[in-house]
Amino acid sequence: MAAKVKKKNTKTYPIIKIFDGVKNASKDEVVAEKPLTIYLNNQKIATLMCTPQEQKYLAAGFLFSEGFIKNSGDIKRIAYNSPKEEVKVFSRKKIKISGHILQDQTFTSGCGKNKSFLKIEDLNLLEDVLINLEFTLSSKEIIKLMKKFELKSSVFKATGGTHSSALANKEKILLFKEDIGRHNAVDKIFGECLLKKIPLQDKLLLTSGRISSDILLKAHRAKINLIVSRSAVTSLALELAHRLGITLIGFARGKRMNIYTYQMRVLE
Amino acid sequence: MAAKVKKKNTKTYPIIKIFDGVKNASKDEVVAEKPLTIYLNNQKIATLMCTPQEQKYLAAGFLFSEGFIKNSGDIKRIAYNSPKEEVKVFSRKKIKISGHILQDQTFTSGCGKNKSFLKIEDLNLLEDVLINLEFTLSSKEIIKLMKKFELKSSVFKATGGTHSSALANKEKILLFKEDIGRHNAVDKIFGECLLKKIPLQDKLLLTSGRISSDILLKAHRAKINLIVSRSAVTSLALELAHRLGITLIGFARGKRMNIYTYQMRVLE
Repeated sequence: MAAKVKKKNTKTYPIIKIFDGVKNASKDEVVAEKPLTIYLNNQKIATLMCTPQEQKYLAAGFLFSEGFIKNSGDIKRIAYNSPKEEVKVFSRKKIKISGHILQDQTFTSGCGKNKSFLKIEDLNLLEDVLINLEFTLSSKEIIKLMKKFELKSSVFKATGGTHSSALANKEKILLFKEDIGRHNAVDKIFGECLLKKIPLQDKLLLTSGRISSDILLKAHRAKINLIVSRSAVTSLALELAHRLGITLIGFARGKRMNIYTYQMRVLE
Repeated sequence: MAAKVKKKNTKTYPIIKIFDGVKNASKDEVVAEKPLTIYLNNQKIATLMCTPQEQKYLAAGFLFSEGFIKNSGDIKRIAYNSPKEEVKVFSRKKIKISGHILQDQTFTSGCGKNKSFLKIEDLNLLEDVLINLEFTLSSKEIIKLMKKFELKSSVFKATGGTHSSALANKEKILLFKEDIGRHNAVDKIFGECLLKKIPLQDKLLLTSGRISSDILLKAHRAKINLIVSRSAVTSLALELAHRLGITLIGFARGKRMNIYTYQMRVLE
């Protein structure tokens, strides 16, 4: 896709576009994804994965939405440190940040504030990932699977309000899940595989939702090597897929798809 | 929308449909949203907002994705308690759940695992919400605003990978934000309003994303009375909007929209 947009909000990468079985080298503009760490009175409150613009507004809005600050009068000073990707907020009055609140986990279905125990820093341990390129399939097989995937989304058809996720081999869809949460739909797949001891290395993960870094890390943990989405990917997901040996495919719709990484697993 | 789907995954509500300025009483099937609490060896790990099906798979997959369990052999027993909406997982070996991991907040852009400090239980304090119905506008004003809203989404047009959010009065869009996270886009609005002391009671919140309970609670905290989305709403968001006096509008596309609650604020 192409439109006029501030450069730091997107990144352009060389990709492979497939239409009706034919590969072409191309470029794609991908939304930028970066971590932003928010401090309140020098105490770390959260790290959000976000689009890197208006970081001060994001930090103030986050602290307000989560109940740490009540109104503009509560904020004494707010400072954004660009190289560190940090916003430091200082309040006029002392604010009690109880350990209890920070420990009591409530996860909800929203995009944008996904608490994840899996850290990007953990990847330093994973630099020597062995990349196995033996599993290959044709773009036509992917197109057929995505068609079947879309036909299965009954809750989405009824309500327009869910994400879908599926596990497939080359021939067919093996598991299919729907949930209000992009992550929940994927976790339901991994949970069933775990309880039924279904191996994942030689399977594809299909999803209706965008692929951000958190979904990519989750798939890597499950040993998935190939992810196909109907939607977009973020810059950080793409860069992690490179490092982790994952074939990342986005905008798989009709006879089209964009292959962002490890295109050699997909035959024409 | 309508299709054949398991009943517990959706709920049907009476709504008002508007097409080209004309109101009609109708019904809409909305995706069910419920909390699920996950325990590991009797310690509470997380409460997820989810679609209420395959709860055991969700719990096992969540614990796997977040690194608490490594493989199927780690699980000794898993039990779902339907009335309590709880899954209890017991591991074969002792698993250390460090307070440090639970306290170190990393929020990412995913749907489905949104850590929120704002609790649904807090609403018990809010039962005597004063509902002010003075602010009204016409459906044609909403249609015009949504048209302008869509024209503004430059990062989305370039990448297909973002959510948009805007603050508007009857006449025009006042603030516009884009982010990979549905929540971040809304928090950027609230942050700017906070820092610039812009009151929110007489404004509309426009969003490209789905309205789940977490977004609704966030808007309530900011004193927003009218939310318009291009996308779907969840059952819990709709029920909370009823309790909190918020006009909730979904599927606002072209000349159409669905009004889920407090339709009296929208004139024909």
